Amino acid sequence: MPRFGRLSRAEDIASKEGLDALIISRPSNIFYLTGFRGGSRLISSPDGEAFILVGGVDLTAAEEHFSGSGVHVLHVKLGEQLDEVMLKVLEELGAKSAGYDELPIGTYKRLIERLGVDGLKDVSKQMWELRKAKDEEELRRIRKACAIAVRGMEVASELMEPGRTELEVVGEIEREMRRAGSEGHPFNLIVASGKNSALPHALSSDKAFKPGELVVVDIGATYRGYVSDMTRTFVVGEHEAWQEELYDIVLRAQEEARRAVRAGVRASDVDEVARRIVEEAGYGPYFVHGLGHGLGVEVHEPPRIGPGVEDILGVGYTITVEPGIYLPGRGGVRIEDTVLVLEDGHEVLTPFPYGLRP
Amino acid sequence: MPRFGRLSRAEDIASKEGLDALIISRPSNIFYLTGFRGGSRLISSPDGEAFILVGGVDLTAAEEHFSGSGVHVLHVKLGEQLDEVMLKVLEELGAKSAGYDELPIGTYKRLIERLGVDGLKDVSKQMWELRKAKDEEELRRIRKACAIAVRGMEVASELMEPGRTELEVVGEIEREMRRAGSEGHPFNLIVASGKNSALPHALSSDKAFKPGELVVVDIGATYRGYVSDMTRTFVVGEHEAWQEELYDIVLRAQEEARRAVRAGVRASDVDEVARRIVEEAGYGPYFVHGLGHGLGVEVHEPPRIGPGVEDILGVGYTITVEPGIYLPGRGGVRIEDTVLVLEDGHEVLTPFPYGLRP
Repeated sequence: MPRFGRLSRAEDIASKEGLDALIISRPSNIFYLTGFRGGSRLISSPDGEAFILVGGVDLTAAEEHFSGSGVHVLHVKLGEQLDEVMLKVLEELGAKSAGYDELPIGTYKRLIERLGVDGLKDVSKQMWELRKAKDEEELRRIRKACAIAVRGMEVASELMEPGRTELEVVGEIEREMRRAGSEGHPFNLIVASGKNSALPHALSSDKAFKPGELVVVDIGATYRGYVSDMTRTFVVGEHEAWQEELYDIVLRAQEEARRAVRAGVRASDVDEVARRIVEEAGYGPYFVHGLGHGLGVEVHEPPRIGPGVEDILGVGYTITVEPGIYLPGRGGVRIEDTVLVLEDGHEVLTPFPYGLRP
Repeated sequence: MPRFGRLSRAEDIASKEGLDALIISRPSNIFYLTGFRGGSRLISSPDGEAFILVGGVDLTAAEEHFSGSGVHVLHVKLGEQLDEVMLKVLEELGAKSAGYDELPIGTYKRLIERLGVDGLKDVSKQMWELRKAKDEEELRRIRKACAIAVRGMEVASELMEPGRTELEVVGEIEREMRRAGSEGHPFNLIVASGKNSALPHALSSDKAFKPGELVVVDIGATYRGYVSDMTRTFVVGEHEAWQEELYDIVLRAQEEARRAVRAGVRASDVDEVARRIVEEAGYGPYFVHGLGHGLGVEVHEPPRIGPGVEDILGVGYTITVEPGIYLPGRGGVRIEDTVLVLEDGHEVLTPFPYGLRP
């Protein structure tokens, strides 16, 4: 049953931690372990029994997906309580202990009542650990999601004209990425111009581009459940000297940080490479976020790449490298690639020219 | 400070429950109370002190938004722990008890350590209660979000031609809604054709439409933080008798259920009107979800409209009415409007013609 090969990883966690069951609620963990998008909870025992709890909206899809897999599809009917069905499964398994990845506090309390404080263990870190290094099939999907985002960025780069609005350009990018096969936008795409570009989490609006404005374009795509994330910063028409200065610093920081990426390196050390360049250029206080983050099924996954993060990068990790400088009221520059961590370096999965006007 | 008028509602909850502070983590609650999109946690005391905890990415936006409001903007710096900053604020407030809307379990445990089990209270229901009836400004935004979705549906209805792909049509709808001002897609839009239309939570793919297939189009838009949600079902070319039969039943169920909507009616009773029509037509087992849901800042908000839901509808509630019949392997029909609950009836906020080929 190779399709469900990853369920054995949940069983391994349960065995290793001496738990009678794992209760998996995070949708991305359910997808990672089973390939199924949907389902409210997955319960897995160390001896290979597994149950997927689904509402009516997911029932047909679940029965098809899990047909012949040995995974029991349990229908949580309209009016039934998910928690009740979960507790029944635990009872049937005779579970006296369980691990969980995340739970609503109400469910947590009910489980404590049933299993006692010592019977319940947070295994979210172990789940994330599994997901950090991507296998061949995961990489194939991430590569495709990256290629789709690159198509979107090409369209964006051709629309840096006065009078176009932020939302109009978002729409053109989305259309192109959908045509190229993106199943979903992993986050609300950002096209942020002028002083909006100085807000790292800017919301695009019907504001029109003006000549000389910086435009930050931060986009991603989804392919078979896996995502991409990339940013370029453009200028509308002619740029000014300060814009080029910012751009050159951010680009140098991005390139040097990428060069520091390889298996065995500490996440904080990669961040430090970029941060020092920005600080030495005098813009330290304006680099207001970490350098990057892991990504895969979700657009933000461990490890974070930032100050104080002890995680060591490993072969097959997919991470973003995205330094930025944001001058409130003036504008910002961010340059971001999704990169694959290799034994002795990295591979850029989102190749697209750098430069204010590529 | 009318802009922050809703913060007093959090203070009211704290007072009424005899709590020294409220800790608000759900992004939609933070937005509802403050108008700010972003921020990791909001802490409010019954005597009007309020703190918004933000990371560097939100700092500039937060300082601008809360300028002159009396709300303290606290910067959670890179490498600092959000929980530590939160605990410090509670200490400064001398809080011996707190209400919360939702919390990660780790944070919950730390708060229990600090405040004791009896010092911590779930106030999520009280927060949801506040949000059910929309005020004038909220309705203005929801109306606009609905109008944008209707534009998207118009585009969709013109593209029901053989050879178009599901994702291509999603892209055209998104482009149109962005041009019309949608700030974000409240959910991953659904264009599901042929047997995919029988999956209520279908994922659109590069599958091309074939003559005679049903196509379910489920879309929504966002305007100034408020959303819309609507569904129409079309046919590609000529339809068959069974498709028209399904359509007529679902449409009758939708219309009759809408007619049952008014202030003072129980949610389950509205569901029952639609469900009985579908059941009497012999398709009960194929109506696999509740009739609808509240919506506002989020696309799924209380009350659910479904079997067993005791909530009474009130004036100003915005809810969806969306019966569906799904025949596995063949196809499905869903018809959905966002409607406003009135004293003595309802108003459809997503007016668009019904029919397999409108």
